[in-house]
Amino acid sequence: MTSTKFRFIILTGIIALTAARTNAQDLYAAQRQSWLKKAEEYKPVLTETIKHPTGIVKLEKDAAAFQGWKMVPAGRVEQFYNTPINQKNTGMIVDFGEHMTGYCTFTLKTLRGDMDSPLRLKLTFGEVPAELATPFDPYPGGLSRAWLQDETVTVSVLPSTVTIPRRVAFRYVKIEWLGSSSGFEFGFTDLHFKASTSVTVTPPELAATTSPIIKDIDRVGLATLKECMQTVYEDGPKRDRRLWIGDTYLESLANLYSFKNDGLTKRCLYLLAGLSNEDGILNADVFEDPEPHAQKTHLLDYCFLYNVALKEYVAATGDKQTGLDLWPVAKKQLDIAKMYTGEDGMMDYVKAGKEWWVFFDWKDGLDKQAPLQGITIYTLNQTYALAKLLGKENEVTEIPAMAKKLKEAAHKNLYDKTTGLFVSGPNKQVSYGGQAWMILSGVASKAEAQKALKALPTVADAVHPGAPYMYHYYIAALIESGLKTEAKAALVDYWGGMVKKGADTFWEVYDPADEFKSPYNFFPVNSYCHAWSCTPVYFIRKYPEIFQQ
Amino acid sequence: MTSTKFRFIILTGIIALTAARTNAQDLYAAQRQSWLKKAEEYKPVLTETIKHPTGIVKLEKDAAAFQGWKMVPAGRVEQFYNTPINQKNTGMIVDFGEHMTGYCTFTLKTLRGDMDSPLRLKLTFGEVPAELATPFDPYPGGLSRAWLQDETVTVSVLPSTVTIPRRVAFRYVKIEWLGSSSGFEFGFTDLHFKASTSVTVTPPELAATTSPIIKDIDRVGLATLKECMQTVYEDGPKRDRRLWIGDTYLESLANLYSFKNDGLTKRCLYLLAGLSNEDGILNADVFEDPEPHAQKTHLLDYCFLYNVALKEYVAATGDKQTGLDLWPVAKKQLDIAKMYTGEDGMMDYVKAGKEWWVFFDWKDGLDKQAPLQGITIYTLNQTYALAKLLGKENEVTEIPAMAKKLKEAAHKNLYDKTTGLFVSGPNKQVSYGGQAWMILSGVASKAEAQKALKALPTVADAVHPGAPYMYHYYIAALIESGLKTEAKAALVDYWGGMVKKGADTFWEVYDPADEFKSPYNFFPVNSYCHAWSCTPVYFIRKYPEIFQQ
Repeated sequence: MTSTKFRFIILTGIIALTAARTNAQDLYAAQRQSWLKKAEEYKPVLTETIKHPTGIVKLEKDAAAFQGWKMVPAGRVEQFYNTPINQKNTGMIVDFGEHMTGYCTFTLKTLRGDMDSPLRLKLTFGEVPAELATPFDPYPGGLSRAWLQDETVTVSVLPSTVTIPRRVAFRYVKIEWLGSSSGFEFGFTDLHFKASTSVTVTPPELAATTSPIIKDIDRVGLATLKECMQTVYEDGPKRDRRLWIGDTYLESLANLYSFKNDGLTKRCLYLLAGLSNEDGILNADVFEDPEPHAQKTHLLDYCFLYNVALKEYVAATGDKQTGLDLWPVAKKQLDIAKMYTGEDGMMDYVKAGKEWWVFFDWKDGLDKQAPLQGITIYTLNQTYALAKLLGKENEVTEIPAMAKKLKEAAHKNLYDKTTGLFVSGPNKQVSYGGQAWMILSGVASKAEAQKALKALPTVADAVHPGAPYMYHYYIAALIESGLKTEAKAALVDYWGGMVKKGADTFWEVYDPADEFKSPYNFFPVNSYCHAWSCTPVYFIRKYPEIFQQ
Repeated sequence: MTSTKFRFIILTGIIALTAARTNAQDLYAAQRQSWLKKAEEYKPVLTETIKHPTGIVKLEKDAAAFQGWKMVPAGRVEQFYNTPINQKNTGMIVDFGEHMTGYCTFTLKTLRGDMDSPLRLKLTFGEVPAELATPFDPYPGGLSRAWLQDETVTVSVLPSTVTIPRRVAFRYVKIEWLGSSSGFEFGFTDLHFKASTSVTVTPPELAATTSPIIKDIDRVGLATLKECMQTVYEDGPKRDRRLWIGDTYLESLANLYSFKNDGLTKRCLYLLAGLSNEDGILNADVFEDPEPHAQKTHLLDYCFLYNVALKEYVAATGDKQTGLDLWPVAKKQLDIAKMYTGEDGMMDYVKAGKEWWVFFDWKDGLDKQAPLQGITIYTLNQTYALAKLLGKENEVTEIPAMAKKLKEAAHKNLYDKTTGLFVSGPNKQVSYGGQAWMILSGVASKAEAQKALKALPTVADAVHPGAPYMYHYYIAALIESGLKTEAKAALVDYWGGMVKKGADTFWEVYDPADEFKSPYNFFPVNSYCHAWSCTPVYFIRKYPEIFQQ
């Protein structure tokens, strides 16, 4: 998940949910404090590793390469050290061989002559090659220019060891000379990186029978997840570097089948709960610094996914105590479902869309009716499953009937028997997202699900997923429908496409037809290591019979 | 003094002076170590003062203002704090009301909304208004671009207190917004500066009778000197921030009559001696960091001026011990005079100019014959005066005859009886510098001196001083010749011109006819607080009968 230029922080719905301050609210304030305290207790100590460059590379224009640029080897790393950096020898790119997150430190020394003036260098850290081939200014992007990782440094005396104050995430660093005196030469004697992650274990190897492309996808997915696992599940270590519910849900799924850092999931669930609003409704994303605080972003589908994430965590770990602690939060999110459910069992997606940010995907024009109806049913079912795990069914006795009502209404109103596809909204839009959520919610029977998913590729104007995030739910729906071959093919096609294009980590946005696609109007500000893209790890490892054969 | 794009580090002459390593040289190496140790002992502890802005200003184009720009008040400083800095409100300039040298620290905080991204700011520190009105890039200057004081800062979390790592020298700081997220506002809650100097005393007031313009010149001169007095006499706190013999000589003169920090002069004399070459010849400039070391710059006239500075120091302070310690250094510089003196008593300025950097002034086309002949005689005389102070005449018995020979030869070869002017070189160039050095050396009789100096302004193609450094010697020559009115008028005209143009400190380069003059092809990289421009302090305070009436 990520921030947007335009935020939909529409509080109308929330205000309606908010009653006058009561003793119950005082109690809730105290609960939030205790949740924050627990979140702090489970804050992981990061594993820090010193990394060194692996070589010198140079940019080469190549129409066949991702975004038109590739890196080609240009020298051994030994050639980088003690090479004079000057007006003629500028723009050198150093490759660390892998995506990393942390802090860059370098040492410069005089190679020849007297340092007659300060020197000035620019270091640009890039996750992908084209990021270093594209001028950043004038900046056309919709997000802050400051996300771009170019830092200018002035050094007055050599030798000097400099640490770039900001944390960066990258594989390549471009070093540009911006000034020094003539008759004087300087160079790098050291360049290293303190890489951090809260991952501490190496997951088991995949089955030997696994195809090379699946192995590659798994490897890149693990790298993506590892990089995003810091002191919270970040959405992206370059950008936005924060805890979003939607990303956390997918990261925690992948983590269950790989790094098994259950403490981190627990911390994130507590942190989100501790930073919920006074009325108990969750915020979609939170920051850790300077002290834990929420960005006041009301994103409907993410509130629901909190319940799902909590259920998955409790089910997988058996940690009922956390489930019981946070059960009030999950229960509270159900109010949102109740608020927008009409007499006819259909969610009032128009009203909800006015009062909330209803996200689902980075995809302009995606109609939200079917996805919203589906995720609501899914959430009701998952929350009830959580209640059962915790012995709390008696507190949510209304759920089964409500879920049934919404499910029947959905089938009645959104299923087109003629085409065998689910439609959404006034224009009866057919979308991957709509099918996925109708299937995951159980609205579609297995037969209907298979029919819909098989028909989808033949629908000319079907709305495709816009980002890996929605692709996750599409793959999940294929698996849910028993379309194993199709699930594997779709995963290999989409994530394998990134691998074939040289991805070290999976990207925030990937449209095979438009490599420059950016929700922010400038592809270099996209995140190229993004949490919500890591879920092949989950699929491949949860379903070895599908992916590891 | 300052660095140049092209250095004349021609060692031929030096090599000729260098004999094989001997016991004497081992002894000299030990002496140098002991001098460096003494220099370290006298290193002053800087006085640090926290300074705060005095107001907001804005740039206004004004053809009548220095370099075409002036600052006009634009608000009280209270209006600066907590004002949102963003795309619309960028380029704010904060005035500290005085020139300062040291370290800038500021604190930013969130004013509204969530900090959704890092923010990016540029701070540009300027000594004079036009420096902040002129784009730095593409940089056309001959010196390192890194001298320019613009620093870009990325801040990831607020509140944040940032100290710009490099030392800066400035009065105005321009703050430019380069990026932050929309729907979020931040501002400064604090901006302060840790200003440093090794000055600890306030010099006495000038006589009440002193004219306002002289008082102003003295005030600006004191500010200039104070700013340049750090742990050495720097040439300029913005640029080049190092100890040059020529600047040190003039600073130490001004210091004798104002701040009386004799320890600093002593330190600088020892430091220069300690960093002399193996053969005893001085380097023109030295650095303190990372450890004391010389820039291997062989500047003939500066070697000579070391002797003059030492003599002035001993004469004024009575510190014979330092004089005796450093006497071997002074004696050694005389070798340079001996090396280039011909049978006819004339210095071989052509050969010297090939083997050394012979400086005298930032003035293209200045012929060096007369100045070199003059400074050599002056140095011989001053060194002999030093010998007498130290009881060492017996070691330099050859000086009086040699000085006499050079003086007579100068008068014979360089004095044009018809015009009453001294000429220089094959084209018989008439220059201010030539007259000044013929007079200071005593080649000209008082009557001849007066005649020459009075005639100078009528000579259409006379080569004028290029910078305040040469102006110093011109004023000194006027005083030496008894032309008191003219000395005062020239000082008021030249330094008063800077004062009238708004100088807070005196400039490295000032040509009333060309305010954009720069030895480095880009006026913003000029130093606008430059040691060699501070000497009005010396003249005004040493000669109250001339300047304080």
